[in-house]
Amino acid sequence: MELIKQNFAVNYTYPVLFINSLFEPGKNKFLKIFEELAIADGARFLIVVDSNVAKAQPALIPSIELFFRLHPFNLLASPVLIDGGEVCKNSLSYTESIWQLINKYGVDRHAYLMAIGGGALLDVAGFAASVAHRGIRHIRVPTTVLSQNDSGVGVKNGINYFGKKNFLGCFATPFAVINDSAFLNTLSNRDFRSGIAEAIKVALIKDADFFNYLETNAEALNKRQPAATMYMIKRCAELHLQHIASADPFEQGNSRPLDYGHWSAHKLEQLSNFNVLHGEAVAIGMCLDAVYAFKMGILSSADMHRIINLVKQLGFKIYNKHLDDKDAVQNEVLNGLDEFREHLGGQLTIMLLTTIGIGTEVNCMDNSVLMESITYLKQAN
Amino acid sequence: MELIKQNFAVNYTYPVLFINSLFEPGKNKFLKIFEELAIADGARFLIVVDSNVAKAQPALIPSIELFFRLHPFNLLASPVLIDGGEVCKNSLSYTESIWQLINKYGVDRHAYLMAIGGGALLDVAGFAASVAHRGIRHIRVPTTVLSQNDSGVGVKNGINYFGKKNFLGCFATPFAVINDSAFLNTLSNRDFRSGIAEAIKVALIKDADFFNYLETNAEALNKRQPAATMYMIKRCAELHLQHIASADPFEQGNSRPLDYGHWSAHKLEQLSNFNVLHGEAVAIGMCLDAVYAFKMGILSSADMHRIINLVKQLGFKIYNKHLDDKDAVQNEVLNGLDEFREHLGGQLTIMLLTTIGIGTEVNCMDNSVLMESITYLKQAN
Repeated sequence: MELIKQNFAVNYTYPVLFINSLFEPGKNKFLKIFEELAIADGARFLIVVDSNVAKAQPALIPSIELFFRLHPFNLLASPVLIDGGEVCKNSLSYTESIWQLINKYGVDRHAYLMAIGGGALLDVAGFAASVAHRGIRHIRVPTTVLSQNDSGVGVKNGINYFGKKNFLGCFATPFAVINDSAFLNTLSNRDFRSGIAEAIKVALIKDADFFNYLETNAEALNKRQPAATMYMIKRCAELHLQHIASADPFEQGNSRPLDYGHWSAHKLEQLSNFNVLHGEAVAIGMCLDAVYAFKMGILSSADMHRIINLVKQLGFKIYNKHLDDKDAVQNEVLNGLDEFREHLGGQLTIMLLTTIGIGTEVNCMDNSVLMESITYLKQAN
Repeated sequence: MELIKQNFAVNYTYPVLFINSLFEPGKNKFLKIFEELAIADGARFLIVVDSNVAKAQPALIPSIELFFRLHPFNLLASPVLIDGGEVCKNSLSYTESIWQLINKYGVDRHAYLMAIGGGALLDVAGFAASVAHRGIRHIRVPTTVLSQNDSGVGVKNGINYFGKKNFLGCFATPFAVINDSAFLNTLSNRDFRSGIAEAIKVALIKDADFFNYLETNAEALNKRQPAATMYMIKRCAELHLQHIASADPFEQGNSRPLDYGHWSAHKLEQLSNFNVLHGEAVAIGMCLDAVYAFKMGILSSADMHRIINLVKQLGFKIYNKHLDDKDAVQNEVLNGLDEFREHLGGQLTIMLLTTIGIGTEVNCMDNSVLMESITYLKQAN
């Protein structure tokens, strides 16, 4: 037997920009971003927009079209509306419609597919872009708290297939991410709050000081005060980005600490037919794993109570009626541990907390203690 | 505007193994490979096999099943046959059938999808594997000269979509490549020869000594002598792997020297409805670009003649009747330059030779000189 060992490294780099009111008249902020990104004159753009965003901001598409009329960049077609939310991830047809646009307008690997929308639309557009011509340039403009502080700045995309969350997808870096805080103004309070769950999560596993900040500023966040919102989003994005860069960017190992509280959350979303928002489900999932960790003697009672209190203070429920159905919980939610393991492969690896800001990994969870923890949450809600 | 610059590197490594008669009785070679690859007891395998290969080697599938019965690895299902050749790249349904298997048998990111077959099947299986669960482990067992010395050892996969070659696909490294020379014995002379075109190509752009070797050993290769065949495959694979590792593995730039002679070859394959094999088309494409380079004063007459002579000596035609149709050539073949540019994006970048072993890149080609070059090939055929 002879052997050649292939070995190489690939460098990945992309900027995450934070700005307010991209299209504020007279300020040319979008142009400054194009300069920052060194986008050449004549560069060709295809833009897809979350239909929910276009509806909430009727001036958005005219502003984009005006920008391209005034500047030497090439908008290949009027921005194309795509249904946002989980619906666009549930059928391959939305991904295919983007491939059709890429084909129709001859979008190549030096042209840009810009996607403006929530996390689900960005997931679909990111997947479509990353496998067309083996990867075309993709600019993400996340429009929700959740996508600006979490998924939108990361390296994953995905769509659901065979009814399984993110069954299809890949790791791919965006060309750039543009976080415009003005988009957050049109979010409902419920959608706004939902995104804060990921900030609690990353604070819990990475940064006790940030957790303190969230405690101190819970009221400001509930009132959607701009300074607290911006700090929360930027710090959350920063911790998320640092984690990706420092550990295992494309998750070749088993560990996935950023999924703290997520294994049950994914299943609760499904159980509720996505009436429970992702962040709402993560809020419950984090509390569930905190109670479980307390019951297993890993986490102190004081820390568990601080976590539950902050989650409640920020307006989340810590229990949902779908958890009343014990059979569904056994079959669907606890079963989520298996699906989580299958998606990641190898040994089940679940992050639990030893204290606020520091996690530890376990390789199995006790079903009866989990059921007790669910009962605890129902009573404490 | 605030900015966080994300920056990280990902290391990629995989072995390419060269072996003869993987399943030779009493030798346990397959087991030794599993040891070399550090595949753990209990590891779960799904295996897809090119139906052409299974037909040519009736003992293959029973040998695989026997291996898994005798050793502590888990074969999830009988090896699944998939139509080989370009047909499996032309419809998403073949890729979907692999996703169905991955779902049905719970193949996760620590299980293995092994694909045994020609380059087309490996492209489909590689694409299916690389976007299922964001990338499951994929072992390639190429069975043709072409896939053993070229595509099978590389980092690309792809399927055709909208009638465009490799419209969907991505860059993804295999877990391992196993090149078993015994598979070559059942190839037709025509298929065997076709794969040698890529060896000529890589010699032309990288290694004058290897070109000399091919000239000296042309008769041995025509007779399919094992020593010459093995050297040709290993050296070609090695040059291919070195190129990937040294330059721009995932082709973020414009340059793609390994596609020397390929821009017209892809179109000639399509024009002939794939009756012209890939290697046969590349042989013509390389000669076309050599004559063109000579006519443009870049390449010497002597070198052009050496290239044409070696291609002929190895039994290739340097012209094909599909090139007689001047309209089709203008509309389909020369149009291939545009599609080539679109796939890669940015500026057209075509590699031409300045001498054997050394290339140079040009950013446009003269249509009338190309037409003259085609006429030259017709006369010299």
